[in-house]
Amino acid sequence: MSEFLDQCRAAIGAANVLTDPADMAGYLTDWRRRFTGRAQGVLRPASTDEVARLVKLSNAHRVPIVPQGGNTGLVLGSVPDASGDAVVLSLARMNVVRHVDTINNTMTVEAGCILETIQNKAAEAGRLFPLSLAAEGSCTIGGNLATNAGGTAVLRYGNTRELCLGLEVVTPQGEVWNGLRGLRKDNTGYDLRDLYIGAEGTLGIITAAVIKLFPQPKASLTALTAMPTPDHALRLLALAQQECGPALTGFELMSDFCLQLVARHFPQMRLPFPQAYPQYVLLELSDSESEEHANGMLESLIGSALEEELIVDAVVASSIAQSRGLWNLREHIPLAQAEEGKNIKHDVSVPISRIGDYIRETDALLQQHFPGIRMVTFGHLGDGNLHYNVSPPEGVSPDEFISRQEDINQVVHDSVHRFGGSISAEHGLGALKRDEIRRYKSEVELQLMRSLKQALDPLNLMNPGKVI
Amino acid sequence: MSEFLDQCRAAIGAANVLTDPADMAGYLTDWRRRFTGRAQGVLRPASTDEVARLVKLSNAHRVPIVPQGGNTGLVLGSVPDASGDAVVLSLARMNVVRHVDTINNTMTVEAGCILETIQNKAAEAGRLFPLSLAAEGSCTIGGNLATNAGGTAVLRYGNTRELCLGLEVVTPQGEVWNGLRGLRKDNTGYDLRDLYIGAEGTLGIITAAVIKLFPQPKASLTALTAMPTPDHALRLLALAQQECGPALTGFELMSDFCLQLVARHFPQMRLPFPQAYPQYVLLELSDSESEEHANGMLESLIGSALEEELIVDAVVASSIAQSRGLWNLREHIPLAQAEEGKNIKHDVSVPISRIGDYIRETDALLQQHFPGIRMVTFGHLGDGNLHYNVSPPEGVSPDEFISRQEDINQVVHDSVHRFGGSISAEHGLGALKRDEIRRYKSEVELQLMRSLKQALDPLNLMNPGKVI
Repeated sequence: MSEFLDQCRAAIGAANVLTDPADMAGYLTDWRRRFTGRAQGVLRPASTDEVARLVKLSNAHRVPIVPQGGNTGLVLGSVPDASGDAVVLSLARMNVVRHVDTINNTMTVEAGCILETIQNKAAEAGRLFPLSLAAEGSCTIGGNLATNAGGTAVLRYGNTRELCLGLEVVTPQGEVWNGLRGLRKDNTGYDLRDLYIGAEGTLGIITAAVIKLFPQPKASLTALTAMPTPDHALRLLALAQQECGPALTGFELMSDFCLQLVARHFPQMRLPFPQAYPQYVLLELSDSESEEHANGMLESLIGSALEEELIVDAVVASSIAQSRGLWNLREHIPLAQAEEGKNIKHDVSVPISRIGDYIRETDALLQQHFPGIRMVTFGHLGDGNLHYNVSPPEGVSPDEFISRQEDINQVVHDSVHRFGGSISAEHGLGALKRDEIRRYKSEVELQLMRSLKQALDPLNLMNPGKVI
Repeated sequence: MSEFLDQCRAAIGAANVLTDPADMAGYLTDWRRRFTGRAQGVLRPASTDEVARLVKLSNAHRVPIVPQGGNTGLVLGSVPDASGDAVVLSLARMNVVRHVDTINNTMTVEAGCILETIQNKAAEAGRLFPLSLAAEGSCTIGGNLATNAGGTAVLRYGNTRELCLGLEVVTPQGEVWNGLRGLRKDNTGYDLRDLYIGAEGTLGIITAAVIKLFPQPKASLTALTAMPTPDHALRLLALAQQECGPALTGFELMSDFCLQLVARHFPQMRLPFPQAYPQYVLLELSDSESEEHANGMLESLIGSALEEELIVDAVVASSIAQSRGLWNLREHIPLAQAEEGKNIKHDVSVPISRIGDYIRETDALLQQHFPGIRMVTFGHLGDGNLHYNVSPPEGVSPDEFISRQEDINQVVHDSVHRFGGSISAEHGLGALKRDEIRRYKSEVELQLMRSLKQALDPLNLMNPGKVI
């Protein structure tokens, strides 16, 4: 029996230290089921104090810790490696909403709160918590913060970083930093908050946060528009920002092939246009005034866009169900691509002004290297963020295709780099892109990151093998 | 002659190394003229490469560097200490706008660009750069970034941190980190950008930045409203946020005594109400639609506020000149207070929900300690940020009052601390609050800050004696 695990049992109760392989299984395999690691055990503390005690024990015994929220990440950031040396520390039991303040427009939440629970709590208080992403029913706010999650509302409300005012963190030494400030302005020293946000658990464990709430919009409208090229979509974006300002809350690009895949694998979903167009933009307006006002704004935008020939067709959802239906098309693209067979995903961003050129040039390069490769290009155009995914050419076996994944990644990511972009816009680095990022970051930046890691976690016990 | 300065002359030209006391004077005294330091010289590089060479020289000779922008700071962050060991490194000559991208809505600027120049460049491109503060005609964007400046548009657009996408920084070792990314989403490692922002030049020298641009509003309306108490103002804030959403771009509280001071010292400025009320809120709406629409929104808000008895009177500016006049009242408060004689300033923030209680309780405590003390309370209520300034009781000599500054600061800041607030909301720590902050931050937080400083600037040559 391990002395370390015995001390963990004494600290948080034997029932909360899992070592049975069946009990641990769900914590060791990643969301896309590509990798299964090993661990000494899974620890499930229920309070910040318990987390701190476990970290102190891990220090004493030199046991690496892999913090875990909903384990929905896409870059192998929340599962342990194959060595079996580490423990997984699950924040799932720390799921209390500690405080809601509707005047300050803030909510204090523990790291293990499910994102959807938080959205619902905000709505009960007559407020909006705008973070929204596909995994919202399973992911936790702690994981959202650790990875600086993006999603579909970034255009208007920013990434998770912009939605957080304060943090509580257990440091790699097992100290508790109480930075749970509900302040819009505080310039009293280094920005520890933003250093922990996006660090993927490699600098400490986020145990709680003060997040921002917003007024609920009075109306929310959805439209699907069709256009010949991504460049038309970009010009539509500029027009919509000019005409609608902050009322523009969603702007999602999808190619025709994306919708073809959805239609093929989910035949019950109806495509809204009788004919196909090369590109589509799903557009959402949120209005603080009224349904009527929102309708007027959307009609005027679509009218101008048709007149300026930025779009060739448009449908406006006339009910919540229809709006849901349009968003479902967008959200079923990754599912349809999975049904189609193995594929390769990319999560890239480039300056918005360069998206058209990026797509054209990278599509051509991929066709040169892998003739017949099928592009599944969609994403958050308003943020410059594309899920620039690829499926094998018709007739090529998935395994043969996947065996060339590294080459394909390099073509895509080298191109992103030439366009001044990022190879991980919203998913993080995890273990998956940790080596690859070295090709794109300068030695100066890598050295700065190493210095920070060394300064805060000199024993390298916090999520080792991730990020840096 | 100093070998170090000779090498600096060789690096950037003798004309850009000032050592004559008359030439140096403006760089050694702070904005409020409370302190004059000494320096070996003032260095005025014109490029990032020159900055890097100077920093390498300072490393070789162990000469501390005080980076300086417009030198308009209020906390002694940009002037050297009295030892005469340091050099001032002025970024003033690095004032090129490198690039404007109206599709990506970004501008790449050098650190020495004056804020007002940037605002104007944005306007020429049909865009808005929303950062706005009293010193905008003199302060530089590098200084704004180094101090994470706030100002009057934070409610809608955030602090300087939220307005920046990427940085170029010369590290304490004289390396150049090129993080000039114009990306809305990038999750590839630690958030170096936000670590340098607000670090007041103690972790490196910001030489350039990619900043965000926004669509220009089609209309901007200003109103002055009057109410009995700050609590009424808070309820007006909630109503305005609910009714106007992101169209609410300014919300400034002022007590009657503030306006009395303005009227006394600037008699040419007209107060808009025929009678006095206890509190006022200056309110600004910016509309992406039209003047007419903005008028309708403002009328409706004022109507509801009168009906719910949140306000007792209101005047709406009917021209740009009248709007300017209302803002002038607000901006002349600190000037009027200076005319009134010596005074003590505080720049505090508390959670917005606690502002009413904070003012009531702290006013009472101050009256207990210093009977007759006069409160000059105004500020950015929408951000929870008060300039909670005090003037001496009538008949008490300014010097006697100033001699008790430390006691007064402690009463105010202890109260802020009890309310979960910050003793420096938007001005930073500099040398002025560096010691005081130790009373309010936990040892855990101070130790984290020291670790970061030690890791990035082990020789302690970057703006020593500031922040930490």
